[in-house]
This record gives sequence, structure tokens and C-alpha cells, in this order.
Amino acid sequence: MQDEMTLDRRLMLSGMLAATLPVATSSAIAQENTAEETDGNYVSVNGIRVHYLRYRATRPPIVLLHGWPAYSEEWRPVMDRLRGRFDLIAPDLRNFGKSDKPAGDEPAANCGPDILAADLLAFADRLGLKTFGIVSHDVGAYVAQTFARQHPERLSGLFFFNCPYNGIGNRWADAPHLLQTWYQYFNQQPFAAKLVGSSREACRHYIGHFLKAWSAGNPAAFDVVVEQWVDNFMRPHNLQGGFNWYISTNPGRQATIQGRASAVPVIRTPTKFFWGRLDPSIKAEWTDRLDEFFSDFDLSFCEDGGHFVNYERPDAASREIQTFFEGSRVNWKSVDA
Amino acid sequence: MQDEMTLDRRLMLSGMLAATLPVATSSAIAQENTAEETDGNYVSVNGIRVHYLRYRATRPPIVLLHGWPAYSEEWRPVMDRLRGRFDLIAPDLRNFGKSDKPAGDEPAANCGPDILAADLLAFADRLGLKTFGIVSHDVGAYVAQTFARQHPERLSGLFFFNCPYNGIGNRWADAPHLLQTWYQYFNQQPFAAKLVGSSREACRHYIGHFLKAWSAGNPAAFDVVVEQWVDNFMRPHNLQGGFNWYISTNPGRQATIQGRASAVPVIRTPTKFFWGRLDPSIKAEWTDRLDEFFSDFDLSFCEDGGHFVNYERPDAASREIQTFFEGSRVNWKSVDA
Repeated sequence: MQDEMTLDRRLMLSGMLAATLPVATSSAIAQENTAEETDGNYVSVNGIRVHYLRYRATRPPIVLLHGWPAYSEEWRPVMDRLRGRFDLIAPDLRNFGKSDKPAGDEPAANCGPDILAADLLAFADRLGLKTFGIVSHDVGAYVAQTFARQHPERLSGLFFFNCPYNGIGNRWADAPHLLQTWYQYFNQQPFAAKLVGSSREACRHYIGHFLKAWSAGNPAAFDVVVEQWVDNFMRPHNLQGGFNWYISTNPGRQATIQGRASAVPVIRTPTKFFWGRLDPSIKAEWTDRLDEFFSDFDLSFCEDGGHFVNYERPDAASREIQTFFEGSRVNWKSVDA
Repeated sequence: MQDEMTLDRRLMLSGMLAATLPVATSSAIAQENTAEETDGNYVSVNGIRVHYLRYRATRPPIVLLHGWPAYSEEWRPVMDRLRGRFDLIAPDLRNFGKSDKPAGDEPAANCGPDILAADLLAFADRLGLKTFGIVSHDVGAYVAQTFARQHPERLSGLFFFNCPYNGIGNRWADAPHLLQTWYQYFNQQPFAAKLVGSSREACRHYIGHFLKAWSAGNPAAFDVVVEQWVDNFMRPHNLQGGFNWYISTNPGRQATIQGRASAVPVIRTPTKFFWGRLDPSIKAEWTDRLDEFFSDFDLSFCEDGGHFVNYERPDAASREIQTFFEGSRVNWKSVDA
């Protein structure tokens, strides 16, 4: 009897929540795929099994690409807020989360931007996404930029939080900034995964550091999920998987710092940046050269956000995503159901 | 009976060993202070208790200054080989080994070169060392250089293995070299000691990495003592103690990289460098500007040595130290007994 009341109450609350969403289909959506939406789905593409979260809706699709040290779950607060407005799809990138890690525990240059962009193309094809938007930051922002240069016809728009791009140049290696970027080199060390993965406590110290220190606008943002993040990174191969991103991108990183990075085509896809002003890692003043790399962009700042604007300030983050992708600048040539 | 025979045999071997040493006093020395020489001594100077190893001899004194990640024990192989030839004294620097760590587990800029040089002056005064030589590398080499600029009248000569000095300049931050120097920044992070000290295993991964990777001429050099090194760094406050060196020296490090380090007086003390050619951290080619900082020096290379020439190639290291300090260039104004 107690259980049934609890269940009724849960359904009532679910109905009330749905009623507050301003889209007609939301209550129908809320009733489908609950387990799938919570635990995720799998699809085999480009030689690996990719795990992804999806809040399905008969609406324009948006793919959300996470960073390091994170995984698809870092989009949960934004997805919860945008549910029903878009077809929201957050994959775990190769080597992250519950997606495959083909190199296992081996240090390997096996997941650079070109590989991850190829994964994304195959993933979009497999899901039947003809035209879609991308929301990204950090690692995901590298993938989004590479994809946008290779397949602009597939994109309706690009939304970035703090975005590592070639215009940062040698500022990555500014003497005071080396106190921030050491992890890009630590993560490449052959012992790094063994040290960080030596215990949950060790992992919590390391991963927890970034979640707190980089969330400079809201350092407590990840407090309630830090154990979930530790769970994720203590899964087999997940630490080395993420570290392999830094091994994969080291040649490009050095070229950028040394000012010998190859010239890249300007990205003409409509683009919005909503940059956390307080990010200690990818700094707000480094937006000064965006116009050399993006021809059609709008920039604004999340004044009380750091690196993880999506997690620190999910209301503002969701509002900006919605405004951009519902706005007239975005070009939805087709809408996938 | 068995015990006595064993003892006799030990004395015989001791006599045989002493007979091979070309100094008359060696057998007398071998019989004194055995426990003290093994476990070390303590003396209170400059507000802290300093621990040191001493192989006492009525010979010219040499103070041996260790680096990071190490402590007085890193001189043991060299001290064993030079026993009886010099009065050999290896202190644990403030914040290292068994010397005091006044900041405890707090990240603190409490042990820069000026402080450690003041410790050394007080230490030498307390032990009655009027004129002495210094053998050093790494952290110890900073202390030796600072001391040499402040108190040249106290020094007979300076012997360096791989020596960090101001002429390295912005090469510390060369893009490819950031894969080596990340630890100078990692070590400053407030979580670093918690992570590395989270277990013996974690500590072994971290400290063991440097002992092996930097011993590029003999990567197995520390294999038999790695647990002893872990013991040392797992002592209360010892990880944070060493890390505080990097916090203390960060302003100077940034100034050096940015080319705004204060000019320093040229060191005129007779100096010998015996530089490990294979050191991945403090590179052999960085010897190119020594003549701007030392007016009376000789440079040669340990071709099959890395960062820890003293531990990787103790025979060659000891031979070079002996040759230098027994040579005519060194100025023993007085010999302390």
C-alpha cells in the first residue's frame, strides 16, 4: 500500500513537471524510453561501440560533446532543462565513459580530433541525423571544429562554451599558465593512470581537483556527483582512455605553441560562444582571435561561470543554447525525427 | 664460538678493506661512529633540527647537497667510495628526509634558496667547518650557487652534477620540454601530496617514475632502494615538504623563463661540472651558458649517466669528486678536524 502511494505520488510529480514544460509533446516523451534515457544506448559505428544518452523528441537534433575529465553525464543538467525542445543526444567519445577503449590500458595516440570526427560522422549517419547542431566545450570543441571543417553541410549551428582553438597559440605555455596546463603533460606519462587509478581515493583527489578548481564560478557544482565521476574513471581503461587524448593531441599542441600549426579553413557555420569568464584553464581573454577562425559567430560571456558552464550554471547555459538553436541564425535544412 | 669467528672474519675483512684505502687513518675511522654514520646525526640550527649523515675523517670537509625526489641517502654510494678521503657530510635539506618540516602538510613557500643557504651557513658554523667543498645537483645545486654568491670565503670548491642555473632561461618552457617539467607545476598543486601520499603504491608510482626515468644511463640504479625511498616520502610531511621547494621557487622559475631574472654575481669559486649526458630533465646542451655564471670552471660529461650520476655511476662520480677536491685548483685555506 505504501509502495503504491509512493508510485502514485511519483507519477503525479512527473505529470506536474511535464506540465511546466512549454512543449506539447513533453508528456508523451516523458513516458517513453525512461530506462534508455537514464542508462543510455549503444550503437556500433566506425569500428567501436559508442554509448550515448538520448532525450528523444520529434524536434531538431543537437549532439552534445563532452570534455575531459568528464563524459556524457556532464550534459545531464542541460539536457534535463532542454528536454522536449530538441532531440538531445550526448555520446561518450571514443575512450571515454561507456564507449569502447580499443587501446585498453596502453598509452596510445588513438583518439585525435580526426578520429573522433570520423566517429561523429558515422554516429550521425547511423542515427539518421541529416542536419544537426553541436553543443560542446573542451575536448568536444576540438571534435566540433574538426567536424565543421570537414562536413559543414551536416551542421545547423555550433554552440561552444569555452573553446580551445588554434588562436590560443603560445599562450598555452605562458610561464604563469604552466601552473594550469601541467595536466596536459602529466596525463601523457606512462605511470599516470597507474597512479591516479591506484585507489578510489587517489582518483577522487585527481579528478575531483579539476571538477572543483575549474568550476571557478561555482566550485561546489560537482559535489553531489563526484562519486559518480570517480565510478566512471575507475571503470576499466577509462583513465588511460582519457589520457590517450593528450597523447594523441601532443604533436598538434606543440605545433600550436611553437606557431607552426597548419592553416585551417575558416568555419562558416553559424556559431555561438558562451564563454565562462572565470575559467582558469581556457581563459576568457583568449577569445581575442576567434574572428580569424570563425566567420559567423556571436560571443558572450557567462560572468559567473568557469570551465564547466554547463554544470556550474545550467539555467543560463540551457537558456543560451535554446536561444541560439531556436533563433533565426541557425540553418535547419532538415529536421530528423 | 660461531659468533666470535664471524666477528673475527668481519674484522679481517674490515682490515683488508681498509688496507686498500690509501689513507692512513681509515682503519681507525672505520671503528668509530658506525651507528651514527648509518643512521645519522641531528643538530639544531637556524630554528630547525637538521639531520645529516657523516663519514667522519680528519680530512678536508665536503658537504653533499641532495636534490628532489631524494634526500641525504642519495649520496650513500659516493660516500661509501670516498670514505676516509674526506670528512663527508650529507644533510637533509629543510623539508626533506629527517630534517624538520616547519610547515607540516601545508603548501608553503618556506624553503627557497636563500633560506636553505642560511640553513647551510648555520649548519657549517655549528659543525665548525671553516672552509669546505660542496658537491651537489638539482635542488642542492641551487643552494650551492646561492651560498657561493653570499659566502665565497667559506668554500674551497664547488662540484656539480647536472646543475639548474639561470642560463637555462626559457628553455625550461620549450614546448617539447614541457613533457619533462610538468612536475614542477604538479608539485605545487594543493592536492598533490594527498594524491601521491594516498597509499604506498601511489607514492611508489610517482617517486619511482623519476628515479627510473631520470636515471637514463642506468634505469635500474634505484631498483634495490625504491622501497627505502618510498619509506622516506611516506614519512609525515615529507611529500609536502619537497613540494614546498617548487612553491618556494615558482616566482624565480617564472622570472627565469620570462627572461626577467635579476642579474647575479659571477661565481669565482673553483668549480667542476660532471654532467650526465643523458639527463632528460636538465639537459647536457644547456651547459652552453655556464661561462656567463662561473668564471673558473671545468666541464666534462658522464657519457653514460643521466640525472642521478651519483647513483647511476657512483664509481665515475666518486673518481671525479676525488680528482677535483684533491687537485691543485681547489683552495683549502684551512682544514677542519
